[in-house]
Amino acid sequence: MSDEFFNSSDSVRTSAPLKHARQVRFEGPVRLREGGELPEIDVTYETYGELNSKEDNAILICHAISGDSHCAAHDPDDDPGWWEVAVGPGKPIDTDRYFVICPNILGGCRGTTGPNSINPETGRPYGADFPTITIDDIVEVHRMLMDHLGIEKLLAVVGGSMGGHQVLSWAIRYPDRAVGAIPLATSPRVTSQALAFDIVGRNAILEDPNFHGGQYYAASSGPTTGLAIARMIGHITYLSREAMARNFEADRYQPRSGSTDFESRFSIGTYLGYQGEKFVERFDANSYITLTKAMDLFDLGTTRQAVAERLSASQARWLIMSFSSDWLFPPEQSEQLVDALLATDKRVTYSEVESSCGHDAFLLPDDLDRYGELMKAFLANLNGKKTAEPQEEVGRPHASPTSIFHTQRLDYDHILELIPPATSVLDLGCGGGELLSLLKRRGNSPLVGVELDERAIITCARRGLDVLRSDLNTGLDRFSNSQFDFVVLSHTLQAVRDVERIVEDMLRVGRRCIVSFPNFGYRRHREMLGRDGRAPESGLLHYKWYNSPNIRFFSIVDFDEFCAEREIEVHQRIALDTQAGAEVREDENLNADMAIFVLSR
Amino acid sequence: MSDEFFNSSDSVRTSAPLKHARQVRFEGPVRLREGGELPEIDVTYETYGELNSKEDNAILICHAISGDSHCAAHDPDDDPGWWEVAVGPGKPIDTDRYFVICPNILGGCRGTTGPNSINPETGRPYGADFPTITIDDIVEVHRMLMDHLGIEKLLAVVGGSMGGHQVLSWAIRYPDRAVGAIPLATSPRVTSQALAFDIVGRNAILEDPNFHGGQYYAASSGPTTGLAIARMIGHITYLSREAMARNFEADRYQPRSGSTDFESRFSIGTYLGYQGEKFVERFDANSYITLTKAMDLFDLGTTRQAVAERLSASQARWLIMSFSSDWLFPPEQSEQLVDALLATDKRVTYSEVESSCGHDAFLLPDDLDRYGELMKAFLANLNGKKTAEPQEEVGRPHASPTSIFHTQRLDYDHILELIPPATSVLDLGCGGGELLSLLKRRGNSPLVGVELDERAIITCARRGLDVLRSDLNTGLDRFSNSQFDFVVLSHTLQAVRDVERIVEDMLRVGRRCIVSFPNFGYRRHREMLGRDGRAPESGLLHYKWYNSPNIRFFSIVDFDEFCAEREIEVHQRIALDTQAGAEVREDENLNADMAIFVLSR
Repeated sequence: MSDEFFNSSDSVRTSAPLKHARQVRFEGPVRLREGGELPEIDVTYETYGELNSKEDNAILICHAISGDSHCAAHDPDDDPGWWEVAVGPGKPIDTDRYFVICPNILGGCRGTTGPNSINPETGRPYGADFPTITIDDIVEVHRMLMDHLGIEKLLAVVGGSMGGHQVLSWAIRYPDRAVGAIPLATSPRVTSQALAFDIVGRNAILEDPNFHGGQYYAASSGPTTGLAIARMIGHITYLSREAMARNFEADRYQPRSGSTDFESRFSIGTYLGYQGEKFVERFDANSYITLTKAMDLFDLGTTRQAVAERLSASQARWLIMSFSSDWLFPPEQSEQLVDALLATDKRVTYSEVESSCGHDAFLLPDDLDRYGELMKAFLANLNGKKTAEPQEEVGRPHASPTSIFHTQRLDYDHILELIPPATSVLDLGCGGGELLSLLKRRGNSPLVGVELDERAIITCARRGLDVLRSDLNTGLDRFSNSQFDFVVLSHTLQAVRDVERIVEDMLRVGRRCIVSFPNFGYRRHREMLGRDGRAPESGLLHYKWYNSPNIRFFSIVDFDEFCAEREIEVHQRIALDTQAGAEVREDENLNADMAIFVLSR
Repeated sequence: MSDEFFNSSDSVRTSAPLKHARQVRFEGPVRLREGGELPEIDVTYETYGELNSKEDNAILICHAISGDSHCAAHDPDDDPGWWEVAVGPGKPIDTDRYFVICPNILGGCRGTTGPNSINPETGRPYGADFPTITIDDIVEVHRMLMDHLGIEKLLAVVGGSMGGHQVLSWAIRYPDRAVGAIPLATSPRVTSQALAFDIVGRNAILEDPNFHGGQYYAASSGPTTGLAIARMIGHITYLSREAMARNFEADRYQPRSGSTDFESRFSIGTYLGYQGEKFVERFDANSYITLTKAMDLFDLGTTRQAVAERLSASQARWLIMSFSSDWLFPPEQSEQLVDALLATDKRVTYSEVESSCGHDAFLLPDDLDRYGELMKAFLANLNGKKTAEPQEEVGRPHASPTSIFHTQRLDYDHILELIPPATSVLDLGCGGGELLSLLKRRGNSPLVGVELDERAIITCARRGLDVLRSDLNTGLDRFSNSQFDFVVLSHTLQAVRDVERIVEDMLRVGRRCIVSFPNFGYRRHREMLGRDGRAPESGLLHYKWYNSPNIRFFSIVDFDEFCAEREIEVHQRIALDTQAGAEVREDENLNADMAIFVLSR
């Protein structure tokens, strides 16, 4: 085993030198999952920051198909890396705090063994003889690197797209070697659409007359036309339609560089031509085939149960993020992962980041204020450290659109009393996690929140809570029957369109359900409508009729009837006068402005 | 000029014979818009049905990029056509009723002059010498065909995708030669994303070593690899992600035919390979380049004003349809056309058809019950014929989710009285067009409806009304200031989330606005809440609190105050007791269950 500074060599024909890269050689033979083997494997990697004395601050970054070990600049004179926005001092993956390792992947062409490496058995590049590899093989090589570096347990494994597939493979193969798992913009397997694009791209390379069955290294030119076509297709799929319009609508007929013939009629033609050419200079066609194939063969299954079984051994906490305009790895695929992890009670935080940047969003600065902040908050809460409450949020009630509160939440005290310690709780419309934080301090576990507001989700993550971004109107299908001891819906039912569905779902998912809501039968409301003929307002219903987030108005009597009609068991019924700060025991429907019901089926 | 049965010949190398096609030759030279010219032009076309004695039942069908003159079978033994689902006896484009003409387009390879036709000046196929053509040139040739057939005025011009571009060009060049214009799944110009895919496809052909600069006809093989790649890319873009998943997720690893090497690992690989091969057999690569280029050069502008100016001379009635899952020609592009036409007061009906089939939806049977029915209803109402009320709908109140009525609409009588004859009216949430039909009979014009329910829109079309599918919560940006004498929002405001926006928009768009709503201050409501402590219900609020489409509850007093705060002028205020069927003149906020306000800014 050797460990030396990496230099550009014959084995990396298409790559420029990476100044700060290191290389290690693992003698083989190394067996591969699809049956092949490699006599030796070189791994090129870069590191940032320092491993601390407890050796618990190492983060492995897994790059996507066209990335490499250079995820960030090492010093001001260094070239920027592919994830410059996220990795560095003070950045979301803070190299002042964490020891970051970023290796080039097996099958690539930037220093780790791939099709353009010299096969020691023949003295020539592998070319088409390079064996079929899988995401698992890529991860296995990186596991060898971690052993070599003496890192037994990673703080986190992070990666987007195909890098996300590697994160998933890590969790399956080495379920106890990372505290946190952060797959971004990824999937249990690629969509049929993405697979189709990959196939067309590969065929363009394979059918290029300069491909020569993959042994083109000695020829005067390689399959550059095919590789450029594949790259151009890929490039289109990485961008959202909106992002393309933003960049190319205004100057559609103004070519950006002197290109050839037809393409020069359209700005986007010259742009694509340039992207294709640039890629051909730095990437190897055999690597492109090898790696897209590895990605396309990655498959955790198509059902929740199948994916859940694959991930069942994982001991990691999970942060999963998707991007709303990503059509290559659409949000519903990340949600498949979330659902599968929840099916075996894994700890998961999930956010669909609102973005107009498409699949590339996780590499760009545009949405960093959300995906970066969430990643930072999640990382800071790994290792079970006591976490400071997020300074700017403490004491401030959450800003969820469903919240009707501007003052204190009297109902929390009562809800806390209703929930015994050590029970599990799902909080629907959890906002910034106020109630969950109180429950966490009391030792309730597991605790899961559901919230729609992206900022509130970041606040939850800062508090070390697990929260899922979701619209309650889409139901609770991701949770299984009786998954929680308690399901709480506090002051949110009045803002839900499909009341029957959410209540039925709660009763299915929770052994006990706690619903709190403003009582429309409250004296003040009756007076306003009954006496004054006006839409009721009060301390709890403080919006105007035309701008309220609340759309369902019902009284304690109405809700009683609702439960009776559906044979929902009402275990307890607490009526509150929040103005007086007291429980109401007489004529509740008239005297209480708020009610708390404890239900079960 | 000759007119003969079309036979397969050297000039259509890649096409199979079309049994029922006819051909006509136009002697030139014909000048083309981009500067080239053609010495003569052959046009191949097929016809269905008979031209009636008044010569007012001719429909021109414009095909999309890979189509041809054979849109439907001529008899049971004939091959099915590309629009078999829509064209034929009893079908939406009913050949028992209409005389249908479907010509192959200029630049194609199925009988109309194109790059693979013999250039009479050289005796060889045009190949790369075929001049650049535009959509306007394609239309010009079809105009010559209409003259040849003696058809001065078409009942309608219909086409989807690139066929829709032809419909638009017809409306610009010959604004008085068609009564109806029906562009489907089309756009003012292609998106940057679609343009990018086209460019990659063209480049695959141009870079194919067998392309030989376009003069490959004499060679042993043409640019089949490049054309197959272009077709495969195109094919992916015609399908929605959902449709691909439906077809290829379950059997991902089961190849559908014995294909080559890698592709055979995935079912979708064999499918794409098959699509590519099939296309190469029947289509000419030069035609593909010529036609995609014509489509990419089609450009009505990027602003509403620009597009409006281009379409301003049109005298046609318009039916525009988009398909919700079409990402190649997304619905917002059809809406750009709608908005531009409305800007110059054209008559337009628009529907975004809910579909999971992507761009191909307009060719498939899946959504025919809506796009076909709407087209049929629209066609039946062209030529200003007296139209029978739709049988199945007469007397039945519309099923719009915003309707709260199960019986009669008392407010209609009053609203009719408030609207003078001969004024223009926009009816928001118009349902099946009951009020608009009454206004139409009275002679009000123009009349436009807005509705979200697809079925209700078909009902409107059957009544000969112009209606736009739109969610009122997205506002009225497509209408200009004071575009209508009256804007009506009858019994819908209580179901609108953004009340302030819709009211402001109405006041901007209409000189007078009429709003009718259930009065929450009605005695019965007050009793239910004030005395019984329950969510009010009554004849007009007959839903339960948990399943009502109504989300805004307000009284006459509330709405008075709302108007006063915004300095909205209230011209008239009618209070009704719908139970008694009478107007209320005393203590309206207590005694009326419904109110009608007439407003202006």
